[in-house]
Amino acid sequence: MTRKDAPTAAPARAITKEDVARAAGVSHITVSRVINTPEKVSPATRERVESFISSMGYIPNMLAGGLASRRTRIVAAIVPTISHSIFAETVRGLSEQLSLQGYQLLLGQTNYSEEAETGLVEAFIGRRVDGLVLTGVQHSARTRQRLKAAGIPVVETWDMSPQPIDMLVGFDNHAAGQAMGDYLVRKGYRRMAFVGGDDPRGLARFAGMRAALLAQGAPEPVHLVVPVGSFLQAGRETICRLLALQPDIEAAFFSNDVMAAGAALECARRGIAVPKRIALAGFANLEIATEVLPALTTVQISAHQIGLTAAEMLLTRFDGQTVPEPLCDLGYSILEREST
Amino acid sequence: MTRKDAPTAAPARAITKEDVARAAGVSHITVSRVINTPEKVSPATRERVESFISSMGYIPNMLAGGLASRRTRIVAAIVPTISHSIFAETVRGLSEQLSLQGYQLLLGQTNYSEEAETGLVEAFIGRRVDGLVLTGVQHSARTRQRLKAAGIPVVETWDMSPQPIDMLVGFDNHAAGQAMGDYLVRKGYRRMAFVGGDDPRGLARFAGMRAALLAQGAPEPVHLVVPVGSFLQAGRETICRLLALQPDIEAAFFSNDVMAAGAALECARRGIAVPKRIALAGFANLEIATEVLPALTTVQISAHQIGLTAAEMLLTRFDGQTVPEPLCDLGYSILEREST
Repeated sequence: MTRKDAPTAAPARAITKEDVARAAGVSHITVSRVINTPEKVSPATRERVESFISSMGYIPNMLAGGLASRRTRIVAAIVPTISHSIFAETVRGLSEQLSLQGYQLLLGQTNYSEEAETGLVEAFIGRRVDGLVLTGVQHSARTRQRLKAAGIPVVETWDMSPQPIDMLVGFDNHAAGQAMGDYLVRKGYRRMAFVGGDDPRGLARFAGMRAALLAQGAPEPVHLVVPVGSFLQAGRETICRLLALQPDIEAAFFSNDVMAAGAALECARRGIAVPKRIALAGFANLEIATEVLPALTTVQISAHQIGLTAAEMLLTRFDGQTVPEPLCDLGYSILEREST
Repeated sequence: MTRKDAPTAAPARAITKEDVARAAGVSHITVSRVINTPEKVSPATRERVESFISSMGYIPNMLAGGLASRRTRIVAAIVPTISHSIFAETVRGLSEQLSLQGYQLLLGQTNYSEEAETGLVEAFIGRRVDGLVLTGVQHSARTRQRLKAAGIPVVETWDMSPQPIDMLVGFDNHAAGQAMGDYLVRKGYRRMAFVGGDDPRGLARFAGMRAALLAQGAPEPVHLVVPVGSFLQAGRETICRLLALQPDIEAAFFSNDVMAAGAALECARRGIAVPKRIALAGFANLEIATEVLPALTTVQISAHQIGLTAAEMLLTRFDGQTVPEPLCDLGYSILEREST
């Protein structure tokens, strides 16, 4: 750390409603009325107080009672991590849509820990958020109980469940994995590997792929477990490990595009022909899947749309309306590119 | 959207302090005491009430007065975008460090718009955040006035300024650009290009590079402006545009690694030798800079550490202490790799 011309002190104390009242020569009740029920104040007084509010930079407390029916206009979102482009897109969608209606986003990261999720849910309820967005459909019993007791709208995302806590928008990870397994078998690959984390969504993708392979008489796929939220380097290391472990492997399906891209870059580095020597497939259709050499076959899902839809569901409920489709399956599709 | 077994209704109303009091057979004042001043309640009553609080899933309102000296324990961070790995790392650092002390993060995205920043600052002050983290050091006069009037700790990040609003942690974008310019000239490159957005930090990096080149007698660099927050595709398109525009170009410095990686992938695709035909350099030392072929020379900065340090500064001030170094320059360094 380098010390430069340090500012002399902390900022002055906050400008309060009382400061505005004093400057405008009115009571603080009048200031409150101008903010909350301006129609009950004479136009002259209103204009005068408003000009002091503006020139002094006073911003009314949105959390205080009487404003916006005690709502905080804050929504909390809990994601495994935002350092992973996939969830970042969902958060961006949420934030975009909510901000249009004057709602702000509290963000929590679990690092894929259920215990961390439980703690975050309690912290957010304690801050009286108007609604909560969760990732996935597996939660601790305590989280479920707390959410029920809080009585606020909840949207689960990124998976499907017949019994959501409240609302849900996502896609079926098992079916998506199965579709990729079917596709790879149809392309003629038999000896395959799955590379992914041990989070519920990664495991569901593997189970789906495995079911597709076994149903069509292909051999049991190799399952390489990597740390959750793995990136390029993990993909690079895993493809080396895989080729050493099982030299006759024909195709590898990675639980995310970033890992698959790392594998593609490593194959390029080592002169391993893709897809001739080994086919590679990813998940999510991130930008890197299109841009890497060769371009990656992947499972397209709607990360950004998940965020937008979750926000719309919450806004509908905040508005006192019923959400017509509280279980929204956005689906997935297989995008075939050069890597398979 | 696919409709499945829809949940029958919105969740029940929230469990209140009154519900707990009724169930435990005590007054709601007793419940409040158990939460706020447990030492004033008899151990038997306390245990009884606490067991109802727990079994009913009641979570006290952290925003109500009397708790934690009226603090919300919420910090707001405003970043240009989180879909860009660079700022995601800063947000991750902030969130990690704040959550250790029970603070949560409100997140705002400006899409590089000063007007959006002004609106977010007002919204966050209205929600009575305990502190605010801003990106960059250029803000509207209105933002500065509102922040001053709010009297809360503010940390600016990702740049340097002799006159910060309050506290600051970052690095000197002009000096970092200059260092890369010096490095490229020293490597023997003369005809160069800079590719970046027209945000203040991108422009400062360009100005620094240009100063280095002119000081050492190299020709005026080409300046290609791309949309702010550009990714792989922009890098790919820009390298094509650049080679068409100025076929004798020798080196290109991109304002972020993702764009530089896009350029490297395009060069590989088109058989353009890097660095022999054109040298490439990036900014930020993201994972992709190490993993792409060839690995990218880049400017290393401390995106994650910026988040950690900003959080530490705020926590120190929340604790009533003075921050010993309110201007913290984390510096930068040139990482030489295969692309130059």
